Parts: sequence; structure tokens; C-alpha cells
Amino acid sequence: MVQARMEQALQRFLPGSEIAPERLHCAMRYAVLGGGKRVRPLLAFAAGELTGADPARVEVVAAAVEMIHAYSLVHDDMPCMDNDVLRRGKPTCHVEFDEATALLAGDALQPLAFQIIAEHAVADNVGAQIEMVRILAAASGSRGMAGGQAIDLASVGTTLSLPELEFMHIHKTGALIRAAVALGARCGHVPETGQLERLERYANRVGLAFQVIDDVLDCEASTATLGKTAGKDAAQEKPTYVSILGLARARALADELRREAQAAVVPFGEKAARLRELADYIVLRKF
Amino acid sequence: MVQARMEQALQRFLPGSEIAPERLHCAMRYAVLGGGKRVRPLLAFAAGELTGADPARVEVVAAAVEMIHAYSLVHDDMPCMDNDVLRRGKPTCHVEFDEATALLAGDALQPLAFQIIAEHAVADNVGAQIEMVRILAAASGSRGMAGGQAIDLASVGTTLSLPELEFMHIHKTGALIRAAVALGARCGHVPETGQLERLERYANRVGLAFQVIDDVLDCEASTATLGKTAGKDAAQEKPTYVSILGLARARALADELRREAQAAVVPFGEKAARLRELADYIVLRKF
Repeated sequence: MVQARMEQALQRFLPGSEIAPERLHCAMRYAVLGGGKRVRPLLAFAAGELTGADPARVEVVAAAVEMIHAYSLVHDDMPCMDNDVLRRGKPTCHVEFDEATALLAGDALQPLAFQIIAEHAVADNVGAQIEMVRILAAASGSRGMAGGQAIDLASVGTTLSLPELEFMHIHKTGALIRAAVALGARCGHVPETGQLERLERYANRVGLAFQVIDDVLDCEASTATLGKTAGKDAAQEKPTYVSILGLARARALADELRREAQAAVVPFGEKAARLRELADYIVLRKF
Repeated sequence: MVQARMEQALQRFLPGSEIAPERLHCAMRYAVLGGGKRVRPLLAFAAGELTGADPARVEVVAAAVEMIHAYSLVHDDMPCMDNDVLRRGKPTCHVEFDEATALLAGDALQPLAFQIIAEHAVADNVGAQIEMVRILAAASGSRGMAGGQAIDLASVGTTLSLPELEFMHIHKTGALIRAAVALGARCGHVPETGQLERLERYANRVGLAFQVIDDVLDCEASTATLGKTAGKDAAQEKPTYVSILGLARARALADELRREAQAAVVPFGEKAARLRELADYIVLRKF
């Protein structure tokens, strides 16, 4: 339900493929539409439910987060980065189009994310809206997601300790997952500081669990199930939770993180039901 | 004076090179600091003078615009785009570092631009601040600068008419130049609609004149004077004002645009003195 709603929202927020420059807009739509688990939007909607947010607001911030996520995948797949040809069961953007177009499509998705937040009444007041811009920008930048990518890049062929691996993922995937929860929640009645801290802890644990399971699935599953190249961490000699802990202990860690995430939101009661469900989904998913 | 002030401001806004991930932060600083004519900051400060803006505000928005400009140069120089090795008299970012780091440095500069606007009191009220985010995002995106790059890419080896060439440059360089003027002005007393239209016309003409002269200099000047590879438009078979109009008529067009720009701000009187001077500088510059 959230997925279908998000697909429609993203369709609307992305420039039409008939608008010039057409090829660029086609590539942007190709990168964003028709695929993906939409984990970040799901988290944004669940956090919005907690604070009684209008879903029309949440879909704007969820779309913004998803655009940042999609651009990062496009650039990450490029030959100078992971050099991957398959994503969400389709050829990667630079394979389907060309490298220059993929580079520009990623470059153009990023400001579109900030633009839609600035163009819609996503919060009760403009101050909260500016705070959302700040949160998303910080999560995307060199001390957030892009910084995590850089750490990931530097780690290829090296040995990381568990804390170092965690530090990388807190940035690389964790920053944007935390932003999805923070932005979704801020579409509604802004919670008190103590409540924000609980939400932050939830998002932190869920973000790490997501990555642990990603590593497990990369090792266990087939390319057909994943929709992206399987086994590539080992092939690229990237340190992962599985390479450091082994499969069984990695799964146990994901389970522990899931329980911690769910415990963090217990005081919210029924309003946090979706957040608890999502923690289950993230850890129990098969792809 | 503006240049020295901007260098200091940019130094301050960019993460230190000793902060992790160090290599990424080094590359971001390398791309932004110690070079460039700072035309967009100069325009932002001149527009700010017109509206009585606090220079401490203008330096924030000017730095944001300059970060977007710097990221676009880093990505534009990459092998899959213009494949250039020299910029501002130094090796380009991907030559000095590596392609993946250059890609990520550009990716991380973009959200930093939005972050600093969101983190500083750059306008009299938060509504104007959000409007600044919107203006910068629109100018950077697929219907602004990134779109212009895509049109430029598609034009290599083709013949463009003068209106088509103008359409490309209104996006590729014009969008960010107009944003510099619009943001600088909005740091002060927001002008009335009629005045904003005059400023917009000024920025539009100055932006085009800037590009016409860029084409002239690419044809006339040496690599040593330019600090970037000269003669590359012709080598890459890119349509330019010089290839369409010839040198003499291109210079005449730049002069006409300069006069139109200056005429647009005449009603502002002495307060627009810097804007008029800048139109002269942009057209009469030697590099």
C-alpha cells in the first residue's frame, strides 16, 4: 500500500520523460521508479503514524529520501565505483543509458529531493521545514551517506574490526535510514526530546540490522532472488558482517538489533505498531 | 576583497581535512579552495549591496552557490564527461585523487550547499530561507544546471542554431548565475516584484555574456592564461558562440548583452554600481 502510493508520488514529483532534456529525465525516472523495497519510505510512513502526520506530507519527505537513495545507487554502480551491471533486476543506469547520463541523473536527483521539501508544506511551521532540509542534507553529505561510501571505498582489501565496520554502516546506509524516520516523524506533532531520542535509537538499530541482513543475503541468496549481483562482497574482498562474524553470528546480531529497536519504541504503545512490524520485516526478509 | 572573504568563509564551511573521512574532505577542499574567479560570489555580494544585505548573510549563500559550481566542475571534468586534466591551473580532482573520490567529493559538496543555507539565519524570516533552498535546488537540477550539462552533452558533434545554443547556456551556466543574484538580493530587504524582474533580467544578460566571453577566450587565449585546457571546444566539436557567429560578432554580442544588463539596473541608481561594474568585468576579462 505504501509502495503503490510512493510509486504514484514519485511519478508525480519526477519531471516527465517528455520534458527536455528528455534523455536525462528518462534516466532519472529509470533510476527511481518501478523497483526497490522502499524500506526508507516505509519507515517514514511508520514514523509519521506515530506522530499523527498527514500522509500527504509524509509522501513528500519519503520521496525526497528515496531520490537521495536512488541517486546514491546510480553513482555507486558506476564503473569507477562498484562497476555493477544489475540493480533491482534491471541493467544499471549507466548500462541502460551511458556513464555521463547516469552521472548527471544522479546529480539532478539530489537537488530535486531538496526542492520538493522546500515546495510543499511538509510541517506545521516553516522552521520545522528548514530543519528537515538540514537533516536530509547532513544525512546525505560527507559526514553521512557520502562519507560512508568513501569509508567503504577505502576498506576494500583491508581488514576492519567490528566497530570499524559498524562506523562505516552507521554512515553509509544508517544515515539515510535515520533521516527517513526523523523526517517522517517531523511531518506530525513534533515529539518531545525524550521521544525523539527513542525514535533515533530505533532508527539506529534498524539501520544496522538492515545492513547485517544485506550482508547475510549477499552471501546466501542468488542473483535472481536479490535482483542485484549476489556474492559480490566476497568477490571484491569487502569486509562484511559475515566475513567478520560468520553467518550464524551475523544472523544472531541482526536479531539482537531487532529486539533493541522494538524495545526502544515500547513506551509509544499501539502507535508504534508499524515501526515494530518493520523491524521484523527488515530482519526476516528474503531479498 | 570579496575573493579573500569568500576563501575564508569556504575554509570555514568545508569540513577540515583532518576530519574522517579525510581523503574525501581533502578532495572537497581541493575542489573548492584556492582558485576560481568567484564570479558567482561577486554577483551575490553586488546584489546584496543593492538590498542592504548583511555581508555575513551573503557569504553563506555565496558559499553555497560556489559549492554547487565547484561540484559541477569536478563531475564535468571526469573521464565520462569532458575528460579534462587541468582546471584553475591545477590537475583536476580525479587526476589529483582518483575517479571514485572525485565522484563522491562532488556528491558531498551538493548537500553541503543546502545544509549551510539551512543552518544559518540568511534572511529576515524562515519563509525567505526556504525560498532560497527552493531557488538553489531548482537552479542546480534537471531544469537548471544539470539539465544544461545534459543538453551540452547531446550537442557534441551536432550543429545548433543560435537560439538552441542560448537555450543550453541559459541552463548550463545561466541558472546558477541567476541564482547567485537572486540569493544575494534576498539576504537583504526583499525587493518588490518589479525590482526582482529587473534583477532577473540583469542576471540573465550577464549570464549569457559570461558564456559568450568564455567561448571567445577558449578560442583566443592560451592554456597558461586560462588555467584550463584552451581550444577544447573546437577539439571536441562543441558548438559555441564563436563557431556560430565568428569571433567579431561574438564579441559584439557580449557587448550588447553587457549594455542590456547595465540598462536593466539603471533605476536602482548608485546602489547598483557594483552590479554595473561586474557586467564590465565579466565582458572585459582576459581569463
